[in-house]
Amino acid sequence: MHKKRVSIRDLAKVLGVTPSTISRALNGHESISVSRRDQIVQLAKELGYRPNQIAKSMVSNKTFTIGLLLPEFTHNYFNNILAGIESVSFQKGYQLFICTSDELKEKEEKSCMAFLNTRVDGVLAAVGNDSDDLSHFETVIEDGTPLVLLDRICEDLNTSYVVTDDFQGSLDAVQYLVQTGCKQILHIKGPEYISTSFNRYLGYVEGLKKNNIPLEENLILMGEDEQFEKKLNQIFDEFEVDGIFAFSDYYAYDAIKVLQKRGIGIPDEVSVIGYADEPIAQYISPQLSTVKQPAFEIGKHAAEILFKMIEEKNTTIMSKQLETTLVIRESTR
Amino acid sequence: MHKKRVSIRDLAKVLGVTPSTISRALNGHESISVSRRDQIVQLAKELGYRPNQIAKSMVSNKTFTIGLLLPEFTHNYFNNILAGIESVSFQKGYQLFICTSDELKEKEEKSCMAFLNTRVDGVLAAVGNDSDDLSHFETVIEDGTPLVLLDRICEDLNTSYVVTDDFQGSLDAVQYLVQTGCKQILHIKGPEYISTSFNRYLGYVEGLKKNNIPLEENLILMGEDEQFEKKLNQIFDEFEVDGIFAFSDYYAYDAIKVLQKRGIGIPDEVSVIGYADEPIAQYISPQLSTVKQPAFEIGKHAAEILFKMIEEKNTTIMSKQLETTLVIRESTR
Repeated sequence: MHKKRVSIRDLAKVLGVTPSTISRALNGHESISVSRRDQIVQLAKELGYRPNQIAKSMVSNKTFTIGLLLPEFTHNYFNNILAGIESVSFQKGYQLFICTSDELKEKEEKSCMAFLNTRVDGVLAAVGNDSDDLSHFETVIEDGTPLVLLDRICEDLNTSYVVTDDFQGSLDAVQYLVQTGCKQILHIKGPEYISTSFNRYLGYVEGLKKNNIPLEENLILMGEDEQFEKKLNQIFDEFEVDGIFAFSDYYAYDAIKVLQKRGIGIPDEVSVIGYADEPIAQYISPQLSTVKQPAFEIGKHAAEILFKMIEEKNTTIMSKQLETTLVIRESTR
Repeated sequence: MHKKRVSIRDLAKVLGVTPSTISRALNGHESISVSRRDQIVQLAKELGYRPNQIAKSMVSNKTFTIGLLLPEFTHNYFNNILAGIESVSFQKGYQLFICTSDELKEKEEKSCMAFLNTRVDGVLAAVGNDSDDLSHFETVIEDGTPLVLLDRICEDLNTSYVVTDDFQGSLDAVQYLVQTGCKQILHIKGPEYISTSFNRYLGYVEGLKKNNIPLEENLILMGEDEQFEKKLNQIFDEFEVDGIFAFSDYYAYDAIKVLQKRGIGIPDEVSVIGYADEPIAQYISPQLSTVKQPAFEIGKHAAEILFKMIEEKNTTIMSKQLETTLVIRESTR
């Protein structure tokens, strides 16, 4: 389908010189006289010659592209990460190629291969839920393509990463709930396989421990549980829950809906804290207290590390953990 | 930074045969005996040989990649378009490279060039706000790379597109407002330069006309106006507005906030209809009535048209206009 492109060979034919003369002229080589060079550049323009970027890349070993693998964009969090990355990559003159994995390993694998096949200069990736097998990322590392992980750590991969201190963020949330009078705190837990779910759970456990509140397994509910509403109602039938700490703002919203159906007052009877500070946190009523992650900064730092690896061929592991902020709105006392 | 890859030449050296023997063996050529072929394939595996996709693409003239240019992902609408495209491209075994333009012409241009440079087999693009100069898309067309426009039409570009019938969608919304008793209907208008803003405005004008309501220029407010709140308040001071039709759900929400500050009842005193059925339409209170666009189908149809162009080398213009649905919730009478 591609039209035949004007090649260096075509230009050479028109002028009756060798292709290497054309090539040297277009690259401003000193062995070609200025008048000759101008003549050749002029002709190249007239005939619509565009240098073959692929051939050029094969020589320079650079494509000035970065592969970015993200799970999806329905969470604004990943949009903010993207904005942070772009704040660096755009300035550096690099083009981002974004692939979405939908948290599926198959899509992650294909995206990694596509990145390597188009010879991106580096890869930024947030590992999806589904991936316990990480060999596709190992392939990227073995290929010698710089890789920085975002948001979710995979301890098996020997590469740089930028994450937030989810443990501390969760601990802060639980501490706040206790300080404002909560004694029975429910945790709505995130999906398995991802480090953030585990770290937020650990922060919750630590928060209880610090305040001498015994850990009650029955007060932990999976956000993705198909019987979420039913199970949450059962918990409220059985326990006098007065605080909820959720893995995400969406889970917090799901819980608020169930509570409102039961006629439970928020925050008078139950305080609720979400996670991530998604836009919905401000749209819903009552406005949701939440743990804000520095998504823009995660993207920015990850890109900065990646460019150090690309430009300075720096191969030291340069990982970074960023702090969260507790945002108090109307859903907590 | 890239590690030296094992080449066909390396394999040839190890076995003491010509590179073309290796190449023919790996491609299953009949001139090579089965036992020899197995030996070569085995060695290729052992040494970690991966065919050079770029070189391969230069021969087959296909990369099995599609470039997707979208303005951004903060609107869920573009996520749904992406899902629709992926429902087709994933099945076809094509990889999507997504670039975001942030509605900036400069980014659109760079993305288009990056798509051509990596020789994507086709481009899907939603043109940004900012672009009155469309020469970068003309370059794509002139290059012979199939291009399908999504969501926003550019009449100057001679290529296929998939859009929704925004005129009819807006007309339906205004008709509903009139039928439920609204007499003074305010329109919150979208950004300039994009066809959707204009089409929704025309639908609004037609809706008034059909119901013999005179068009009042003072009842049209730009959603991006920096003095939005002040001007909306001025309009409510001066006119007895009883209906609002907004270009987007976000503008509708902005208006609802101003109205609620004034103590105006929704929908008792003023009915509000948004556009797009973004998730916030269901999170806010009152839940927002809105015009739902078939975003998933837009993506799906656009991808289907693109693959017809790529696979069947079909160069006829195959455009499509899809219907909207009026979703009535709590913000209208």
